[in-house]
Amino acid sequence: MSENITLYGYWRSSAAYRVRICLNLKALGYESQSVHLVRNGGEQHSAEYHELNASELVPVLVDGDIQLNQSLAIIQYLDEQYPQAPIIPEPSPIRYQALAMAQDIAMEIHPLNNLRVLQYLERECSCNQQNKVEWIHHWIHEGFTALEEKLTHHRQQYGNCIYSVTDSPSVVDICLVPQVYNALRFGVDMTSYPIITAVVEACNQLPAFIAAMPENQEDAKS
Amino acid sequence: MSENITLYGYWRSSAAYRVRICLNLKALGYESQSVHLVRNGGEQHSAEYHELNASELVPVLVDGDIQLNQSLAIIQYLDEQYPQAPIIPEPSPIRYQALAMAQDIAMEIHPLNNLRVLQYLERECSCNQQNKVEWIHHWIHEGFTALEEKLTHHRQQYGNCIYSVTDSPSVVDICLVPQVYNALRFGVDMTSYPIITAVVEACNQLPAFIAAMPENQEDAKS
Repeated sequence: MSENITLYGYWRSSAAYRVRICLNLKALGYESQSVHLVRNGGEQHSAEYHELNASELVPVLVDGDIQLNQSLAIIQYLDEQYPQAPIIPEPSPIRYQALAMAQDIAMEIHPLNNLRVLQYLERECSCNQQNKVEWIHHWIHEGFTALEEKLTHHRQQYGNCIYSVTDSPSVVDICLVPQVYNALRFGVDMTSYPIITAVVEACNQLPAFIAAMPENQEDAKS
Repeated sequence: MSENITLYGYWRSSAAYRVRICLNLKALGYESQSVHLVRNGGEQHSAEYHELNASELVPVLVDGDIQLNQSLAIIQYLDEQYPQAPIIPEPSPIRYQALAMAQDIAMEIHPLNNLRVLQYLERECSCNQQNKVEWIHHWIHEGFTALEEKLTHHRQQYGNCIYSVTDSPSVVDICLVPQVYNALRFGVDMTSYPIITAVVEACNQLPAFIAAMPENQEDAKS
Protein backbone atom coordinates (compact mmCIF):
# COMPACT_ATOMS: atom_id res chain seq x y z
CA MET A 1 0.00 0.00 0.00
CA SER A 2 2.77 2.41 0.83
CA GLU A 3 3.78 2.81 -2.81
CA ASN A 4 0.63 4.89 -3.26
CA ILE A 5 1.27 7.55 -0.64
CA THR A 6 1.83 11.15 -1.70
CA LEU A 7 2.48 13.95 0.79
CA TYR A 8 1.77 17.51 -0.29
CA GLY A 9 3.84 19.70 1.98
CA TYR A 10 6.53 22.34 2.27
CA TRP A 11 9.99 21.91 3.77
CA ARG A 12 9.48 24.53 6.49
CA SER A 13 5.85 23.75 7.38
CA SER A 14 5.71 22.37 10.94
CA ALA A 15 2.56 20.41 10.16
CA ALA A 16 4.11 18.74 7.08
CA TYR A 17 7.28 18.06 9.13
CA ARG A 18 5.12 16.15 11.65
CA VAL A 19 3.69 13.90 8.95
CA ARG A 20 7.13 13.27 7.43
CA ILE A 21 8.40 12.06 10.83
CA CYS A 22 5.37 9.77 11.20
CA LEU A 23 5.79 8.27 7.71
CA ASN A 24 9.50 7.70 8.37
CA LEU A 25 8.95 6.09 11.79
CA LYS A 26 6.55 3.67 10.12
CA ALA A 27 9.02 3.12 7.25
CA LEU A 28 6.36 4.04 4.70
CA GLY A 29 7.70 5.18 1.35
CA TYR A 30 6.00 8.24 -0.11
CA GLU A 31 6.25 10.70 -2.91
CA SER A 32 6.83 14.28 -1.80
CA GLN A 33 5.00 17.08 -3.62
CA SER A 34 6.19 20.56 -2.76
CA VAL A 35 3.59 23.31 -2.30
CA HIS A 36 5.62 26.52 -2.01
CA LEU A 37 3.91 28.63 0.65
CA VAL A 38 5.46 31.93 -0.44
CA ARG A 39 6.24 31.80 -4.18
CA ASN A 40 3.58 33.18 -6.55
CA GLY A 41 1.55 34.49 -3.63
CA GLY A 42 1.51 31.01 -2.12
CA GLU A 43 0.96 27.86 -4.19
CA GLN A 44 -1.46 26.60 -1.50
CA HIS A 45 -3.94 29.12 -2.96
CA SER A 46 -3.76 27.63 -6.48
CA ALA A 47 -6.92 26.11 -7.99
CA GLU A 48 -5.13 22.76 -8.19
CA TYR A 49 -4.24 22.68 -4.50
CA HIS A 50 -7.63 24.08 -3.48
CA GLU A 51 -9.15 20.90 -4.94
CA LEU A 52 -7.04 18.88 -2.49
CA ASN A 53 -7.83 21.05 0.53
CA ALA A 54 -10.31 23.92 0.41
CA SER A 55 -8.65 25.30 3.56
CA GLU A 56 -5.56 26.01 1.42
CA LEU A 57 -3.19 24.80 4.13
CA VAL A 58 -0.53 22.08 4.01
CA PRO A 59 -0.18 19.15 4.46
CA VAL A 60 -2.46 16.85 2.49
CA LEU A 61 -1.85 13.12 2.38
CA VAL A 62 -3.15 11.04 -0.50
CA ASP A 63 -3.13 7.26 -0.01
CA GLY A 64 -5.14 5.42 -2.65
CA ASP A 65 -8.74 6.61 -2.19
CA ILE A 66 -7.91 8.57 0.98
CA GLN A 67 -7.33 12.31 0.62
CA LEU A 68 -6.80 13.90 3.99
CA ASN A 69 -5.72 17.19 5.51
CA GLN A 70 -4.89 18.12 9.13
CA SER A 71 -1.63 16.62 10.37
CA LEU A 72 -3.09 15.06 13.54
CA ALA A 73 -5.92 13.40 11.58
CA ILE A 74 -3.31 12.10 9.11
CA ILE A 75 -1.16 10.77 11.97
CA GLN A 76 -4.15 8.98 13.51
CA TYR A 77 -5.02 7.54 10.08
CA LEU A 78 -1.47 6.27 9.54
CA ASP A 79 -1.30 4.87 13.06
CA GLU A 80 -4.56 2.95 12.72
CA GLN A 81 -4.00 1.73 9.16
CA TYR A 82 -0.26 0.96 9.42
CA PRO A 83 0.12 -0.37 12.98
CA GLN A 84 3.90 -0.93 12.83
CA ALA A 85 5.84 1.42 15.14
CA PRO A 86 2.79 2.67 17.08
CA ILE A 87 2.71 6.46 17.47
CA ILE A 88 -0.30 6.95 19.75
CA PRO A 89 0.38 4.87 22.87
CA GLU A 90 -2.23 2.24 23.75
CA PRO A 91 -2.48 2.07 27.52
CA SER A 92 -4.67 4.55 29.32
CA PRO A 93 -3.99 7.07 30.82
CA ILE A 94 -0.72 7.67 28.89
CA ARG A 95 -2.64 7.40 25.59
CA TYR A 96 -4.83 10.38 26.39
CA GLN A 97 -2.10 12.39 28.09
CA ALA A 98 -0.08 11.97 24.89
CA LEU A 99 -2.97 13.16 22.72
CA ALA A 100 -3.52 16.12 25.04
CA MET A 101 0.16 17.14 25.03
CA ALA A 102 0.34 16.81 21.25
CA GLN A 103 -2.72 19.06 21.03
CA ASP A 104 -1.21 21.50 23.55
CA ILE A 105 1.47 22.07 20.90
CA ALA A 106 -0.60 21.67 17.73
CA MET A 107 -3.61 23.70 18.93
CA GLU A 108 -2.28 26.26 21.40
CA ILE A 109 1.15 27.17 20.00
CA HIS A 110 1.41 26.38 16.32
CA PRO A 111 -1.83 27.87 14.87
CA LEU A 112 -0.97 31.25 16.37
CA ASN A 113 2.44 31.39 14.71
CA ASN A 114 1.36 30.14 11.31
CA LEU A 115 2.40 32.10 8.21
CA ARG A 116 -1.12 33.38 7.43
CA VAL A 117 -1.48 34.76 10.97
CA LEU A 118 1.85 36.58 10.80
CA GLN A 119 0.82 37.98 7.41
CA TYR A 120 -2.47 39.26 8.90
CA LEU A 121 -0.66 40.88 11.86
CA GLU A 122 1.63 42.71 9.44
CA ARG A 123 -1.11 43.70 7.00
CA GLU A 124 -3.98 44.60 9.33
CA CYS A 125 -2.39 45.32 12.71
CA SER A 126 0.68 47.26 11.48
CA CYS A 127 2.98 44.80 13.26
CA ASN A 128 6.63 45.16 12.29
CA GLN A 129 9.21 42.36 12.31
CA GLN A 130 10.02 42.90 16.00
CA ASN A 131 6.33 42.81 16.99
CA LYS A 132 5.92 39.55 15.07
CA VAL A 133 8.96 37.97 16.70
CA GLU A 134 7.66 39.01 20.14
CA TRP A 135 4.28 37.45 19.27
CA ILE A 136 5.98 34.20 18.23
CA HIS A 137 8.16 34.11 21.36
CA HIS A 138 5.18 34.84 23.62
CA TRP A 139 3.08 31.87 22.49
CA ILE A 140 6.04 29.49 22.37
CA HIS A 141 7.10 30.43 25.92
CA GLU A 142 3.49 30.11 27.17
CA GLY A 143 3.23 26.67 25.63
CA PHE A 144 6.70 25.37 26.49
CA THR A 145 6.50 26.56 30.13
CA ALA A 146 3.34 24.49 30.63
CA LEU A 147 4.69 21.54 28.64
CA GLU A 148 7.99 21.43 30.57
CA GLU A 149 5.97 21.28 33.79
CA LYS A 150 3.72 18.52 32.41
CA LEU A 151 6.77 16.49 31.28
CA THR A 152 8.27 16.93 34.77
CA HIS A 153 5.09 15.64 36.41
CA HIS A 154 4.93 12.77 33.94
CA ARG A 155 8.45 11.68 35.00
CA GLN A 156 7.56 12.00 38.70
CA GLN A 157 4.54 9.78 38.13
CA TYR A 158 5.86 7.18 35.66
CA GLY A 159 9.66 7.42 35.97
CA ASN A 160 12.16 8.69 33.44
CA CYS A 161 11.69 8.03 29.75
CA ILE A 162 13.80 8.82 26.70
CA TYR A 163 11.13 10.60 24.68
CA SER A 164 8.27 12.83 25.83
CA VAL A 165 6.04 10.21 27.45
CA THR A 166 7.52 6.79 26.61
CA ASP A 167 10.73 5.05 25.54
CA SER A 168 9.62 5.02 21.90
CA PRO A 169 8.74 8.12 19.87
CA SER A 170 5.09 9.12 20.13
CA VAL A 171 2.73 11.71 18.71
CA VAL A 172 4.02 14.19 21.33
CA ASP A 173 7.56 13.99 19.96
CA ILE A 174 6.22 14.28 16.42
CA CYS A 175 4.63 17.60 17.35
CA LEU A 176 7.42 18.78 19.66
CA VAL A 177 10.40 18.45 17.33
CA PRO A 178 9.00 20.74 14.59
CA GLN A 179 7.85 23.24 17.23
CA VAL A 180 11.34 23.40 18.74
CA TYR A 181 12.84 23.72 15.24
CA ASN A 182 10.54 26.71 14.77
CA ALA A 183 11.47 28.15 18.17
CA LEU A 184 15.19 27.98 17.41
CA ARG A 185 14.61 29.52 13.98
CA PHE A 186 13.13 32.56 15.72
CA GLY A 187 15.83 32.70 18.41
CA VAL A 188 13.77 31.51 21.38
CA ASP A 189 15.96 30.94 24.46
CA MET A 190 15.47 27.28 25.40
CA THR A 191 17.46 27.25 28.67
CA SER A 192 14.28 27.07 30.80
CA TYR A 193 13.21 23.85 29.07
CA PRO A 194 15.78 21.15 29.90
CA ILE A 195 13.43 18.17 29.45
CA ILE A 196 12.07 19.46 26.14
CA THR A 197 15.64 20.04 24.97
CA ALA A 198 16.80 16.56 26.00
CA VAL A 199 13.80 14.90 24.35
CA VAL A 200 14.37 16.75 21.09
CA GLU A 201 18.08 15.90 21.13
CA ALA A 202 17.20 12.22 21.56
CA CYS A 203 14.68 12.37 18.73
CA ASN A 204 17.06 14.12 16.39
CA GLN A 205 19.51 11.24 16.62
CA LEU A 206 16.99 8.88 15.01
CA PRO A 207 17.14 8.41 11.23
CA ALA A 208 13.35 8.96 10.93
CA PHE A 209 13.66 12.42 12.46
CA ILE A 210 16.86 13.29 10.57
CA ALA A 211 15.33 12.41 7.19
CA ALA A 212 12.28 14.56 8.02
CA MET A 213 14.29 17.69 8.88
CA PRO A 214 13.39 20.74 6.79
CA GLU A 215 16.93 21.14 5.48
CA ASN A 216 16.89 17.57 4.19
CA GLN A 217 13.87 18.13 1.92
CA GLU A 218 14.29 18.55 -1.81
CA ASP A 219 12.42 21.87 -1.84
CA ALA A 220 14.50 23.40 0.96
CA LYS A 221 15.29 27.02 0.14
CA SER A 222 13.86 26.64 -3.33
CA MET B 1 -18.30 5.02 36.34
CA SER B 2 -20.09 8.14 35.22
CA GLU B 3 -20.83 9.18 38.82
CA ASN B 4 -17.14 10.12 39.10
CA ILE B 5 -16.92 12.57 36.22
CA THR B 6 -16.19 16.23 36.93
CA LEU B 7 -15.90 18.82 34.17
CA TYR B 8 -13.98 22.01 34.92
CA GLY B 9 -15.25 24.55 32.42
CA TYR B 10 -16.86 27.89 31.82
CA TRP B 11 -20.28 28.52 30.33
CA ARG B 12 -18.96 30.55 27.37
CA SER B 13 -15.82 28.51 26.62
CA SER B 14 -16.23 26.82 23.21
CA ALA B 15 -13.91 23.99 24.23
CA ALA B 16 -15.89 23.26 27.43
CA TYR B 17 -19.14 23.50 25.41
CA ARG B 18 -17.79 20.73 23.10
CA VAL B 19 -17.17 18.41 26.03
CA ARG B 20 -20.60 19.13 27.55
CA ILE B 21 -22.26 18.10 24.26
CA CYS B 22 -20.21 14.90 24.16
CA LEU B 23 -21.05 13.98 27.76
CA ASN B 24 -24.74 14.63 27.10
CA LEU B 25 -24.82 12.62 23.85
CA LYS B 26 -23.36 9.69 25.79
CA ALA B 27 -25.83 10.30 28.65
CA LEU B 28 -22.96 10.51 31.14
CA GLY B 29 -23.79 12.34 34.34
CA TYR B 30 -21.12 14.76 35.54
CA GLU B 31 -20.47 17.42 38.10
CA SER B 32 -19.82 20.84 36.65
CA GLN B 33 -17.10 23.02 38.23
CA SER B 34 -17.05 26.59 37.00
CA VAL B 35 -13.69 28.25 36.33
CA HIS B 36 -14.50 31.91 35.73
CA LEU B 37 -12.22 33.06 32.90
CA VAL B 38 -12.54 36.77 33.63
CA ARG B 39 -13.25 37.27 37.36
CA ASN B 40 -10.24 37.88 39.64
CA GLY B 41 -7.94 38.13 36.63
CA GLY B 42 -9.13 34.72 35.45
CA GLU B 43 -9.62 31.79 37.83
CA GLN B 44 -7.82 29.53 35.32
CA HIS B 45 -4.62 31.18 36.57
CA SER B 46 -5.23 30.20 40.22
CA ALA B 47 -2.76 27.84 41.90
CA GLU B 48 -5.58 25.34 42.39
CA TYR B 49 -6.50 25.20 38.71
CA HIS B 50 -2.85 25.27 37.62
CA GLU B 51 -2.48 21.91 39.41
CA LEU B 52 -5.20 20.50 37.13
CA ASN B 53 -3.77 21.98 33.92
CA ALA B 54 -0.46 23.83 33.83
CA SER B 55 -1.61 25.38 30.52
CA GLU B 56 -4.23 27.31 32.53
CA LEU B 57 -6.92 26.72 29.91
CA VAL B 58 -10.33 25.08 30.25
CA PRO B 59 -11.67 22.44 30.08
CA VAL B 60 -10.28 19.69 32.28
CA LEU B 61 -12.14 16.42 32.74
CA VAL B 62 -11.58 14.30 35.84
CA ASP B 63 -12.89 10.73 35.71
CA GLY B 64 -11.59 8.57 38.55
CA ASP B 65 -7.81 8.43 38.03
CA ILE B 66 -7.96 10.23 34.69
CA GLN B 67 -7.23 13.96 34.68
CA LEU B 68 -7.24 15.29 31.15
CA ASN B 69 -7.15 18.61 29.31
CA GLN B 70 -7.67 19.41 25.60
CA SER B 71 -11.27 19.00 24.44
CA LEU B 72 -10.47 16.74 21.47
CA ALA B 73 -8.35 14.42 23.62
CA ILE B 74 -11.20 14.34 26.15
CA ILE B 75 -13.72 13.53 23.40
CA GLN B 76 -11.55 10.70 22.08
CA TYR B 77 -11.16 9.39 25.66
CA LEU B 78 -14.92 9.47 26.26
CA ASP B 79 -15.63 7.87 22.88
CA GLU B 80 -13.21 4.99 23.46
CA GLN B 81 -14.10 4.40 27.12
CA TYR B 82 -17.88 4.91 26.85
CA PRO B 83 -18.75 3.45 23.43
CA GLN B 84 -22.49 4.25 23.56
CA ALA B 85 -23.56 6.89 21.00
CA PRO B 86 -20.28 6.84 19.01
CA ILE B 87 -18.91 10.31 18.28
CA ILE B 88 -15.96 9.53 16.01
CA PRO B 89 -17.37 7.50 13.09
CA GLU B 90 -15.83 4.08 12.52
CA PRO B 91 -15.73 3.46 8.77
CA SER B 92 -12.86 4.88 6.76
CA PRO B 93 -12.65 7.35 5.03
CA ILE B 94 -15.48 9.18 6.86
CA ARG B 95 -13.73 8.58 10.19
CA TYR B 96 -10.66 10.55 9.14
CA GLN B 97 -12.57 13.21 7.22
CA ALA B 98 -14.56 13.80 10.41
CA LEU B 99 -11.39 14.14 12.50
CA ALA B 100 -9.91 16.50 9.91
CA MET B 101 -13.02 18.71 9.77
CA ALA B 102 -13.24 18.82 13.58
CA GLN B 103 -9.59 19.90 13.62
CA ASP B 104 -10.23 22.46 10.86
CA ILE B 105 -12.50 24.14 13.41
CA ALA B 106 -10.65 23.37 16.62
CA MET B 107 -7.15 24.13 15.29
CA GLU B 108 -7.56 26.75 12.57
CA ILE B 109 -10.44 28.90 13.83
CA HIS B 110 -10.89 28.59 17.56
CA PRO B 111 -7.31 29.03 18.90
CA LEU B 112 -7.01 32.35 17.07
CA ASN B 113 -10.14 33.78 18.67
CA ASN B 114 -9.48 32.58 22.18
CA LEU B 115 -9.73 35.06 25.06
CA ARG B 116 -6.00 35.14 25.79
CA VAL B 117 -5.24 35.97 22.14
CA LEU B 118 -7.75 38.83 22.08
CA GLN B 119 -6.25 40.10 25.34
CA TYR B 120 -2.75 40.03 23.78
CA LEU B 121 -3.96 41.88 20.66
CA GLU B 122 -5.44 44.61 22.85
CA ARG B 123 -2.49 44.83 25.24
CA GLU B 124 0.48 44.47 22.88
CA CYS B 125 -0.84 45.37 19.40
CA SER B 126 -3.04 48.36 20.38
CA CYS B 127 -6.07 46.65 18.82
CA ASN B 128 -9.35 48.32 19.70
CA GLN B 129 -12.73 46.57 19.91
CA GLN B 130 -13.39 47.00 16.16
CA ASN B 131 -9.95 45.58 15.24
CA LYS B 132 -10.64 42.57 17.46
CA VAL B 133 -14.07 41.97 15.94
CA GLU B 134 -12.54 42.17 12.43
CA TRP B 135 -9.88 39.67 13.51
CA ILE B 136 -12.57 37.29 14.84
CA HIS B 137 -14.70 37.65 11.68
CA HIS B 138 -11.70 37.10 9.42
CA TRP B 139 -10.70 33.72 10.86
CA ILE B 140 -14.29 32.51 11.15
CA HIS B 141 -15.03 33.43 7.51
CA GLU B 142 -11.77 31.78 6.36
CA GLY B 143 -12.67 28.61 8.22
CA PHE B 144 -16.39 28.50 7.42
CA THR B 145 -15.86 29.19 3.70
CA ALA B 146 -13.60 26.14 3.45
CA LEU B 147 -15.84 24.03 5.68
CA GLU B 148 -19.01 24.85 3.73
CA GLU B 149 -17.21 23.72 0.57
CA LYS B 150 -16.03 20.51 2.23
CA LEU B 151 -19.55 19.75 3.51
CA THR B 152 -20.88 20.35 -0.03
CA HIS B 153 -18.34 17.89 -1.50
CA HIS B 154 -19.15 15.40 1.24
CA ARG B 155 -22.84 15.47 0.21
CA GLN B 156 -21.96 15.12 -3.46
CA GLN B 157 -19.87 12.07 -2.63
CA TYR B 158 -21.95 10.32 0.04
CA GLY B 159 -25.44 11.81 -0.35
CA ASN B 160 -27.32 14.09 2.00
CA CYS B 161 -27.05 13.67 5.76
CA ILE B 162 -28.70 15.42 8.68
CA TYR B 163 -25.56 16.36 10.57
CA SER B 164 -22.13 17.36 9.26
CA VAL B 165 -20.95 14.00 7.94
CA THR B 166 -23.49 11.38 9.07
CA ASP B 167 -27.08 10.95 10.25
CA SER B 168 -26.00 10.90 13.88
CA PRO B 169 -24.08 13.67 15.61
CA SER B 170 -20.31 13.35 15.34
CA VAL B 171 -17.19 15.10 16.53
CA VAL B 172 -17.60 17.61 13.67
CA ASP B 173 -20.97 18.75 15.01
CA ILE B 174 -19.56 18.91 18.52
CA CYS B 175 -16.94 21.39 17.29
CA LEU B 176 -19.20 23.23 14.84
CA VAL B 177 -22.07 24.16 17.14
CA PRO B 178 -19.92 26.07 19.68
CA GLN B 179 -18.04 27.77 16.83
CA VAL B 180 -21.30 28.97 15.25
CA TYR B 181 -22.54 30.10 18.68
CA ASN B 182 -19.36 32.16 18.91
CA ALA B 183 -19.79 33.51 15.36
CA LEU B 184 -23.33 34.69 16.10
CA ARG B 185 -22.20 36.25 19.36
CA PHE B 186 -19.81 38.43 17.37
CA GLY B 187 -22.36 39.20 14.64
CA VAL B 188 -20.88 37.12 11.81
CA ASP B 189 -23.18 37.05 8.76
CA MET B 190 -23.98 33.35 8.19
CA THR B 191 -25.90 33.69 4.90
CA SER B 192 -23.02 32.25 2.86
CA TYR B 193 -23.07 29.05 4.89
CA PRO B 194 -26.42 27.29 4.29
CA ILE B 195 -25.21 23.76 5.05
CA ILE B 196 -23.44 24.82 8.24
CA THR B 197 -26.58 26.70 9.30
CA ALA B 198 -28.88 23.74 8.58
CA VAL B 199 -26.60 21.31 10.44
CA VAL B 200 -26.44 23.55 13.49
CA GLU B 201 -30.23 24.02 13.47
CA ALA B 202 -30.66 20.24 13.40
CA CYS B 203 -28.20 19.78 16.25
CA ASN B 204 -29.81 22.45 18.38
CA GLN B 205 -33.09 20.56 18.39
CA LEU B 206 -31.48 17.67 20.26
CA PRO B 207 -31.72 17.63 24.07
CA ALA B 208 -27.98 16.88 24.36
CA PHE B 209 -27.12 20.08 22.52
CA ILE B 210 -29.79 22.16 24.26
CA ALA B 211 -28.61 21.13 27.72
CA ALA B 212 -25.02 22.04 26.75
CA MET B 213 -25.84 25.57 25.56
CA PRO B 214 -23.92 28.31 27.38
CA GLU B 215 -27.11 30.01 28.60
CA ASN B 216 -28.26 26.78 30.20
CA GLN B 217 -25.21 26.49 32.46
CA GLU B 218 -25.39 27.39 36.13
CA ASP B 219 -22.50 29.84 35.88
CA ALA B 220 -24.00 31.73 32.91
CA LYS B 221 -23.48 35.46 33.35
CA SER B 222 -22.19 34.92 36.86
